[in-house]
Amino acid sequence: MNYSSTFIPTLREVPADAVIASHILMFRSGMIRKLANGLFAYLPLGLRSFRKVENIIRQEMNAAGALEIKPTVVLPGEIWKESGRWDSMGEGMLRVKNRLDNDFVVSPTAEEAVTAIVREELSSYRQLPLNLYQINTKFRDEIRPRYGLMRGREFIMKDAYSFHRDDESLDETYQRMGRAYRRIFKRCGLSVIPVKADSGAMGGSGSEEFMVESNIGDNTLILCKKCDYAANVEKAECAGDHADQTQSAETPLYEKIDTPGVKTIDELCAFLNTSPQTFIKTLIFRAVNVELDLSGAPGCSALSKNDNAVYPEAFFAAAIRGDLDVNETKLAALLKAGEVSLASDSDILRLTNAPVGFAGPVGLNSLPLIADQSVVLMKDAVTGALAKDLHYRHVAYGRDFTSWMTGDLRTVKSGDICTVCGGELYEKKGNELGHIFKLGYKYTSSMKVSYLDENGKSAIPIMGCYGIGVDRTLASIIEEHHDEAGIIWPVSVAPYHVIIIPIKYDAQVKTAADRLATELEEAGIEVLLDDRSERPGVKFNDADLLGIPWRVVIGDKGLAQPSPQIEIKRRSEKESRTVDLDKAAEELVQKIMEELRN
Amino acid sequence: MNYSSTFIPTLREVPADAVIASHILMFRSGMIRKLANGLFAYLPLGLRSFRKVENIIRQEMNAAGALEIKPTVVLPGEIWKESGRWDSMGEGMLRVKNRLDNDFVVSPTAEEAVTAIVREELSSYRQLPLNLYQINTKFRDEIRPRYGLMRGREFIMKDAYSFHRDDESLDETYQRMGRAYRRIFKRCGLSVIPVKADSGAMGGSGSEEFMVESNIGDNTLILCKKCDYAANVEKAECAGDHADQTQSAETPLYEKIDTPGVKTIDELCAFLNTSPQTFIKTLIFRAVNVELDLSGAPGCSALSKNDNAVYPEAFFAAAIRGDLDVNETKLAALLKAGEVSLASDSDILRLTNAPVGFAGPVGLNSLPLIADQSVVLMKDAVTGALAKDLHYRHVAYGRDFTSWMTGDLRTVKSGDICTVCGGELYEKKGNELGHIFKLGYKYTSSMKVSYLDENGKSAIPIMGCYGIGVDRTLASIIEEHHDEAGIIWPVSVAPYHVIIIPIKYDAQVKTAADRLATELEEAGIEVLLDDRSERPGVKFNDADLLGIPWRVVIGDKGLAQPSPQIEIKRRSEKESRTVDLDKAAEELVQKIMEELRN
Repeated sequence: MNYSSTFIPTLREVPADAVIASHILMFRSGMIRKLANGLFAYLPLGLRSFRKVENIIRQEMNAAGALEIKPTVVLPGEIWKESGRWDSMGEGMLRVKNRLDNDFVVSPTAEEAVTAIVREELSSYRQLPLNLYQINTKFRDEIRPRYGLMRGREFIMKDAYSFHRDDESLDETYQRMGRAYRRIFKRCGLSVIPVKADSGAMGGSGSEEFMVESNIGDNTLILCKKCDYAANVEKAECAGDHADQTQSAETPLYEKIDTPGVKTIDELCAFLNTSPQTFIKTLIFRAVNVELDLSGAPGCSALSKNDNAVYPEAFFAAAIRGDLDVNETKLAALLKAGEVSLASDSDILRLTNAPVGFAGPVGLNSLPLIADQSVVLMKDAVTGALAKDLHYRHVAYGRDFTSWMTGDLRTVKSGDICTVCGGELYEKKGNELGHIFKLGYKYTSSMKVSYLDENGKSAIPIMGCYGIGVDRTLASIIEEHHDEAGIIWPVSVAPYHVIIIPIKYDAQVKTAADRLATELEEAGIEVLLDDRSERPGVKFNDADLLGIPWRVVIGDKGLAQPSPQIEIKRRSEKESRTVDLDKAAEELVQKIMEELRN
Repeated sequence: MNYSSTFIPTLREVPADAVIASHILMFRSGMIRKLANGLFAYLPLGLRSFRKVENIIRQEMNAAGALEIKPTVVLPGEIWKESGRWDSMGEGMLRVKNRLDNDFVVSPTAEEAVTAIVREELSSYRQLPLNLYQINTKFRDEIRPRYGLMRGREFIMKDAYSFHRDDESLDETYQRMGRAYRRIFKRCGLSVIPVKADSGAMGGSGSEEFMVESNIGDNTLILCKKCDYAANVEKAECAGDHADQTQSAETPLYEKIDTPGVKTIDELCAFLNTSPQTFIKTLIFRAVNVELDLSGAPGCSALSKNDNAVYPEAFFAAAIRGDLDVNETKLAALLKAGEVSLASDSDILRLTNAPVGFAGPVGLNSLPLIADQSVVLMKDAVTGALAKDLHYRHVAYGRDFTSWMTGDLRTVKSGDICTVCGGELYEKKGNELGHIFKLGYKYTSSMKVSYLDENGKSAIPIMGCYGIGVDRTLASIIEEHHDEAGIIWPVSVAPYHVIIIPIKYDAQVKTAADRLATELEEAGIEVLLDDRSERPGVKFNDADLLGIPWRVVIGDKGLAQPSPQIEIKRRSEKESRTVDLDKAAEELVQKIMEELRN
């Protein structure tokens, strides 16, 4: 392809709203342009690399036995009402009514669409397992889209949905998808950190996220300094620490203490001259769409499940050691709730009979208490006393109160102890490129999918779900592969493999450049020939900016040698070297093909 | 690919709403499924053929020098307001507000998006011509979507937009696109009829549609029995006919005649005992968004152009010979109007001072009169007299009235005379697959695109626009290539090239089938191996339904021959023949590759 026949509007300036390398470099190299906030158009150069990432994903998905389909981007609202997500998805989902007043959704994800398709066709266990995927347009109405393709409103995702007879079959596909994802990111030249993750609003359990380190990342990763433990903070676990052991063996009977005007843990520490580790913090949460069975739970006798088999609203108390924080994602997962958030002051007053700051587990009968594991070990603790300006001390778990449920609610932090090896944990910011997770029966059950098993009995299939953001993967490649002059593409995803720069595109230089381009293209190498009448410096700068892996420079001086010479340079290396014009094509083809095979 | 490893849910029954072959067969063969009215999901088999059509289009576009880009599907409303189409596009365009109250459009077409991109980048004449295309999702909110993919709400279009310095450059690209379109449809095995067309709401002039004959077609085509004249009825012209010659040479002075209770042409014919050819029919039209300059036109002194340089509303009278019909598309083109429709009864009363049925050209000063060419020749005509129950006779054009404008308003019908060769014209129903047209300056002017020409002066580029409906092209291939048993794919767009049917997938038959499949696949042939444990009859029926071009049957009997035999059959032929198992792969590869090269 001649440079003048394509459309690569490079820029010297950095767009005002671009702060990260991929955003800056994709703009400057003419790969993308902005149509509106969070809406980007790929120009020809950008689309070439985009398609390569897309095709790597497609190849690996096909190789792993997944089957490509293409549902529409605009989906009927009905199926979202069936699954219950019409209500639960929030304002990030773009809803639209057409002229006939039908509800539609501009697809943010496709569990419902694929489940609806499979529901109609599935009849026998012989059709399972089935793994369907699409590579298609998605829309999420980000309030604050930014960082270019990293957090756009419209984007392309590969999303796969698998259906299975049992957990073993699901696990087999889940593991296979995990391996495919590792190959995909490796082929794209990306260093990803696979981390254990909570599956969030998608429902279900058993999930792994594929993260790239990024200081603008949405996610906090918890990593171990000694072993390869890695988890999203939403899911990360840690071992009990020394603070758990500091309780006295024999605890006096608990007693009231007056704590006038003391509300926060810090104030209480100062007042009692002790440390937060000796307190039990009790927080009141409001949960929506709770799947967990609450029949018989304290204060829940008036609650009942709605048509979607969930409790629309329920309140819980969560108790945790005073120096620790409750992880709302873990709490939501434990409760099988759509969302969990701190209750309002008025709800707290109504439920605890006391203003904010005086909730405590002793005598709390108005709602179910969930105790973090840190609390279970506490034998001589200070707690709120369910009344203004009043606390208890010498409170012991098991003697003075028990919980309706115990679990791991703790937000893990740098310095906590690894459950696997006892090493020290630390934090990193990360961006999620891919996510695989076991969905369970959430959609197949709510949308009533069934098949006949080997015994002719009706059964519900179990689902898995596997996504990769294609644009974000592309942008992340640039984040990892660039320098101050521009992009440094891995060969596998480079828009062209070779850029040929004739010092002046004329006479014998033109002849040599054209011939080399033809030889390379006939061997399957993608060539950009810079035929512009620009100064060599401009061409070199653009070549560095565009990041084509191999640069060939052809000039009169080299061609005048007894055996005509040209100059070859890798974008990733500083030095160029001269090679015989006649041998250049062969060498380049060999090296590029070798890298593409890897 | 083994049949049992993919997902091809074939059906015996025909879906209730499917009435045309492509809709029925794509459902029955498991190519597509319906998500909602007008919204279809491609299943794996359908997507394979879809991608082949898409790639043929992509290859031919690239070969013709067009550059692929990818704007978003959801586009900002602002650019539609700039072009004026936010108002003029009607309810077929899906508009949506996001949570921040920004206006968006789910893209029905992309003139605005591409023009907005080019506007930012275009600076010099050296960047022109530029031809950018996308293959992307579109949405049009059809009130009554039907015929499966033929008229869906969401669909995939290839749309290209070219920018030029002058008419010559535009024409060069326009012609090249026309040639590319002919190659695309030929490679897809389609017989298309290229017809002259009106460019409709897109604006501009100079356009060609690529039609396939279809009795459910939206379009009426006018074709000549003698020459290759072909035009959309919206644009078709015909020669004057004998009726134009029947007027008397000398016409008496015109006079009033009482026509009590006579309103229609038929009633008038009966009343005067004559034929419709002797009447001048005068119709009142309301036109919106008129670009034509109306300053000085009768009754238009109060009108003025709005911000988009159009008259939002204007009224016109159109006069035509009594036996002919006014073609609203032609009238709109003549007036450079966004849309033209018959005026309401109350507007007619206000403008003609008479109830509906008595409008006439004599003394009509309240609005501009557009006369069809048929009227210009009339020297002794009957017309309405602008008063209830009153007509004139002996009316002559030029003597008793003239028009503000004359033109071709006539709707051409079967039996009219070809302007090219004098042959007889006839009608056909057709479906539009592609459309190329010269847009002119509509978007570059309203959206203020400019560049510096060779003399350093600011100039506005002229545009062309070129679309193909990918889904509709795919469905049309099935319309043209099927029989009562199923689809008969051309090799170029077949989901697989060969289907191998082992009579029983076991022992030596399995070994032979697997080996043949491997040999073919290694040679680049796409194979579907029917490994199901179904009866041979079921497999044969499914193979015919799926329409794979080559069928191979392998059974114990053939393999038991001294030189093992298998059976080969083309889907398009009745008879099969036996070939040596050892030579089958070579023969199939050779034949298929030969067809793919064509």
